[in-house]
Amino acid sequence: MSEVMTVRGFVATDPRLKKLENGTDATDFRLACSERWFDREKNEWVDGQTNWFSVTAYRELAKNSVSSIKKGEKVIVVGRLKVRTFTREDSTVGAYVGLEAQSIGHDLTWASSAVIHKSYPPK
Amino acid sequence: MSEVMTVRGFVATDPRLKKLENGTDATDFRLACSERWFDREKNEWVDGQTNWFSVTAYRELAKNSVSSIKKGEKVIVVGRLKVRTFTREDSTVGAYVGLEAQSIGHDLTWASSAVIHKSYPPK
Amino acid sequence: MSEVMTVRGFVATDPRLKKLENGTDATDFRLACSERWFDREKNEWVDGQTNWFSVTAYRELAKNSVSSIKKGEKVIVVGRLKVRTFTREDSTVGAYVGLEAQSIGHDLTWASSAVIHKSYPPK
Amino acid sequence: MSEVMTVRGFVATDPRLKKLENGTDATDFRLACSERWFDREKNEWVDGQTNWFSVTAYRELAKNSVSSIKKGEKVIVVGRLKVRTFTREDSTVGAYVGLEAQSIGHDLTWASSAVIHKSYPPK
Repeated sequence: MSEVMTVRGFVATDPRLKKLENGTDATDFRLACSERWFDREKNEWVDGQTNWFSVTAYRELAKNSVSSIKKGEKVIVVGRLKVRTFTREDSTVGAYVGLEAQSIGHDLTWASSAVIHKSYPPK
Repeated sequence: MSEVMTVRGFVATDPRLKKLENGTDATDFRLACSERWFDREKNEWVDGQTNWFSVTAYRELAKNSVSSIKKGEKVIVVGRLKVRTFTREDSTVGAYVGLEAQSIGHDLTWASSAVIHKSYPPK
Repeated sequence: MSEVMTVRGFVATDPRLKKLENGTDATDFRLACSERWFDREKNEWVDGQTNWFSVTAYRELAKNSVSSIKKGEKVIVVGRLKVRTFTREDSTVGAYVGLEAQSIGHDLTWASSAVIHKSYPPK
Repeated sequence: MSEVMTVRGFVATDPRLKKLENGTDATDFRLACSERWFDREKNEWVDGQTNWFSVTAYRELAKNSVSSIKKGEKVIVVGRLKVRTFTREDSTVGAYVGLEAQSIGHDLTWASSAVIHKSYPPK
């Protein structure tokens, strides 16, 4: 019953490094994912509505994301979907659509990138 | 009935740029994906067997992959699975497990990376 | 940049058949997906929070869903995620987390099922 | 680094119930998944090649699959991909593309189905 999904989109806010109360490194950023589909009648690609996600990352992935990702870049995010609705003090209802990232990477469909620091041993 | 999947693993061969007969840029590389799971009885993570994929990429993604990816790096690949068995001239049977990539990126779980050339307009 | 995902959960409302203005058959139902994970410290499975989705289906899939699915049953849904926030007349903000289904099926992990009417030719 | 994927296709062999040496119920069947895509130049849907999978299931899912699924039916399978190549006694190489199922269901895109036996409590 887990919902791990892969989302590709544009980073809309620069990620900044935070510390959780227990000392864990964390970060978050907004991700905009526009649907595109091929309209057979018009014979052209059409831009649909945009899904917005709040991406969160922890530990090594948080640190590497902060040093690697800038607003405007196109990324792949693999993560677990978290959908929450909540009631504000004024009793209005809001919603949070989060993606707790397991992996994030610059999408090479649109740019080239270079590894600048490895935290894993060669294999 | 499409099988788009996301695979995370280690690049086992350096990608090289090729030209298809029709002039399209293309590349391919081998990707090794080891399963890991938490063994509740032993109370530890266990390495399982490895899935091997032949990743192919075309056009802009091929060019960016060749200039960005090196053997030994950890990547995320989103692509369409292609399973083919074939019969060789000596009538033995071989198999090909391919992944036709739609997106590829360095996995920031394990390293930081920098965009070095964008081929997309700012958005 | 599409987000087709697979979600497994419990049907929380009976689907009913509707007609769209253009005559297309449609249905929708609420789906509750609880996360479960293995807590290594407690050495037991833990129930996490629940993701709620509004599943929509059209045409043949809508008709078959209405005649097949009842509240309380466990299903697999493959579909495209639609995240929308909207502003009500009283200017409060609401949210809609939809899943536009491509395929739906009773999950045989938890029950057995029988095909009672086929709309496809034998293959 | 796990590769859980969702595959939709036609069941090509009737599943039969087996017992593993340790007493666990198990079953397996062949699944054929044909790609279809929209050819923009021809302005029509085109049938591509077929991916074949060996689906395995265990325990409750194996028992329910055997009592529910027949050759020719269209199903959704969520599972973990297992790609293995092996060398036969005559030193030729074969390949096995398996899918260890976590969930299986009749696809309501193409048929209606009814739950005939529940093994889960109402929720």
